Amino acid sequence: MIGPAKNSVPATNPTKKLLLSPDSIINLDHGDPTMFEPYWRKLGEKCTVEISGSDLMSYCSDIGNICWFLEPQLSDAIKRLHRTVGNAVSEDRYVVVGTGSTQLYQAALFALTSPGGAEADPISVVCAAPYYSSYQEETDFLRSGLYKWAGDAYSFDKDGPYIEIVTSPNNPDGAILEAVVNRKEGKLIHDLAYYWPQYTPITHPADYDIMLFTFSKSTGHAGSRIGWALVNDKVVARKMTKFIEVSSTGVSKESQLRAAKILGVAIEGCQHSDSENFFKYGQCLMAERWEKLRDVVKNSQIFSLPKYPQEWCNFISKYSESHPAFAWLKCKEDTNCESLLRAHKILTRGGERFGVGQEYARISLLSRERDFNQFLERLSGIKTAGQGIRTT
Amino acid sequence: MIGPAKNSVPATNPTKKLLLSPDSIINLDHGDPTMFEPYWRKLGEKCTVEISGSDLMSYCSDIGNICWFLEPQLSDAIKRLHRTVGNAVSEDRYVVVGTGSTQLYQAALFALTSPGGAEADPISVVCAAPYYSSYQEETDFLRSGLYKWAGDAYSFDKDGPYIEIVTSPNNPDGAILEAVVNRKEGKLIHDLAYYWPQYTPITHPADYDIMLFTFSKSTGHAGSRIGWALVNDKVVARKMTKFIEVSSTGVSKESQLRAAKILGVAIEGCQHSDSENFFKYGQCLMAERWEKLRDVVKNSQIFSLPKYPQEWCNFISKYSESHPAFAWLKCKEDTNCESLLRAHKILTRGGERFGVGQEYARISLLSRERDFNQFLERLSGIKTAGQGIRTT
Ligand SMILES: Cc1ncc(COP(=O)(O)O)c(C=O)c1O
Ligand SMILES: Cc1ncc(COP(=O)(O)O)c(C=O)c1O
Repeated sequence: MIGPAKNSVPATNPTKKLLLSPDSIINLDHGDPTMFEPYWRKLGEKCTVEISGSDLMSYCSDIGNICWFLEPQLSDAIKRLHRTVGNAVSEDRYVVVGTGSTQLYQAALFALTSPGGAEADPISVVCAAPYYSSYQEETDFLRSGLYKWAGDAYSFDKDGPYIEIVTSPNNPDGAILEAVVNRKEGKLIHDLAYYWPQYTPITHPADYDIMLFTFSKSTGHAGSRIGWALVNDKVVARKMTKFIEVSSTGVSKESQLRAAKILGVAIEGCQHSDSENFFKYGQCLMAERWEKLRDVVKNSQIFSLPKYPQEWCNFISKYSESHPAFAWLKCKEDTNCESLLRAHKILTRGGERFGVGQEYARISLLSRERDFNQFLERLSGIKTAGQGIRTT
Repeated sequence: MIGPAKNSVPATNPTKKLLLSPDSIINLDHGDPTMFEPYWRKLGEKCTVEISGSDLMSYCSDIGNICWFLEPQLSDAIKRLHRTVGNAVSEDRYVVVGTGSTQLYQAALFALTSPGGAEADPISVVCAAPYYSSYQEETDFLRSGLYKWAGDAYSFDKDGPYIEIVTSPNNPDGAILEAVVNRKEGKLIHDLAYYWPQYTPITHPADYDIMLFTFSKSTGHAGSRIGWALVNDKVVARKMTKFIEVSSTGVSKESQLRAAKILGVAIEGCQHSDSENFFKYGQCLMAERWEKLRDVVKNSQIFSLPKYPQEWCNFISKYSESHPAFAWLKCKEDTNCESLLRAHKILTRGGERFGVGQEYARISLLSRERDFNQFLERLSGIKTAGQGIRTT
């Protein structure tokens, strides 16, 4: 998925401002949130953490807490952040920290299905298509006897217990979603990675049994591998903690410390004027990118994009529409959208990976500005659905 | 395992020098390597890392590398460290970084068994008893169809493919071990967490297909959750990387950066006189603790300890014996060693967890000095195998 792409633009060195040659590959396959770097760079020292050689040596952070490897200052920052942004109920919830929300998704599956029975069938895991392409792989890669991917929630018709993942706003298509199966035997995991003001209007504080969030998408710090779950039920929190204990004996304390610091600065910024407020800044930036993208697509005979309704956002105190982290681009019928874009050296992820047709492709809008602009330029040059590279 | 222990000594706050009351519980159940804190504290600024708000934001570290989330400076430091200490061949090996060696153990199982067949039985995983108690749980907790814990390697008699873990020096008993099954269909994982000069003489550079090491035990930085594998085979390295990609989309970059810095300082220290050389310092400290412990046990009618041979250590250029991270304490017959110690408010891990009898208990020797001394004092007061708390 992520990983080496021959001849692609080095993602690691923001300072080397390589000019993009028409030959370079633009990798917009995964949602690497590097667009937020300039904001954090501008803040300078304020977000800097200093860690000395003897700090953070123990496995333990807080042995009195169910999640014994969670740094108390991170737990505090997370709760304050949700109060400030108003996107989730965090009072009286257990916080479980994970190595990204990737690990927490698996922890939640484990918590909802273990210990399982020796004879019992693995529990079905479903999600409404188009769904985030990694869920399937994360669910099935170890061929667990506890749980098993069962695909699109809309076509799920097996009796008995199941787990449904609700991703809202949805990856890949940005839609605001609710559970679709709605049966008594079901358990829900809400993946709210993108429920932040820069991506979508905050209409109410989310209030579900298991809510997953991530530092990767909230502030753009994907390299830290910090995610968190807000969990209602003590037994579930305990089992999720157990999963992370067995799978990695906890979560990097350096990352936790830094996340606590940066979330603290973000919270403080919410008291300030627009450009100092990370979420308002992000909201403007995403709105700008979407405007530019819609301009290009409007003039295209081939491509289309979803439309999003206007909603009141409690955070920015304005009506606004969603500006998702990904563009869910549709090609006119019978065109393989991913292949077409690849022929123009734009790497994206095709619809089939999300459980739908190949006329769709998902494109990250979180890249560095240079790549985003280059992407728009190439996109606007695609005039026919033929596979060749444009010859302009 | 780790986690809340009622009434136990707070492990998180080294600066609060609470006096241990006779009532406090001493938790020596897990190998939390806090004994090394004073060494790193003494070095002051030298090991400090500073990370600014816009650093390390991308998921990717090195997209040209098989292990695309491995920071190049960590990879370099690891290879230099092994060259300097002489404990493993690292040239022409693939380095795979993990969230602790805990995650890498699971990555190795995945690499050696996937994709598996729909009909195929899970592959047996064995280890010579007494074996590290976590392997079984890490192998079986998801009820994987790829692999399955099969217990003690000495009694393994199933035909067909298998995986054997060789832990050397061994946890719990400190023994230097070799593979025991030795059949053509077998694959080996060498867990060399304790193959460092402070624990055992370095007799030769280890040279195996998959070797696991950890920052937790090498320098004592367990909170960072950094482990690494040195891997011979490209396909195995690729699959291990895949496992970590799916399970946590990489490994904390903050921790990697800090590990690179601290390993760099440790390497530099190897050029210096004894007390500046971390591994020599550690070797002296462990030797001292073992001497004190053996003094207490020598006078006991109840307890005994393993003996270790003298070997030439290439690193300290001396004959020396092993000074393992754990004491593998044996009680005279029919005594439950863990219960006996627990009655004296010393938490340890009983032999049954390691696949052997309850007359054994494993005791961490890596605690802070105060706890270690208090442990010795209590141990020396245990005069009978009765379960009661001593009444002195
Ligand atoms: C919906 C969704 N959930 C979870 C994740 C994983 O995030 P993390 O970086 O915290 O593992 C992503 C990342 O793209 C995502 O899009
Ligand atoms: C033999 C052995 N392997 C692996 C580990 C796990 O180490 P890490 O902290 O790197 O996950 C331990 C920790 O106690 C151990 O004793």
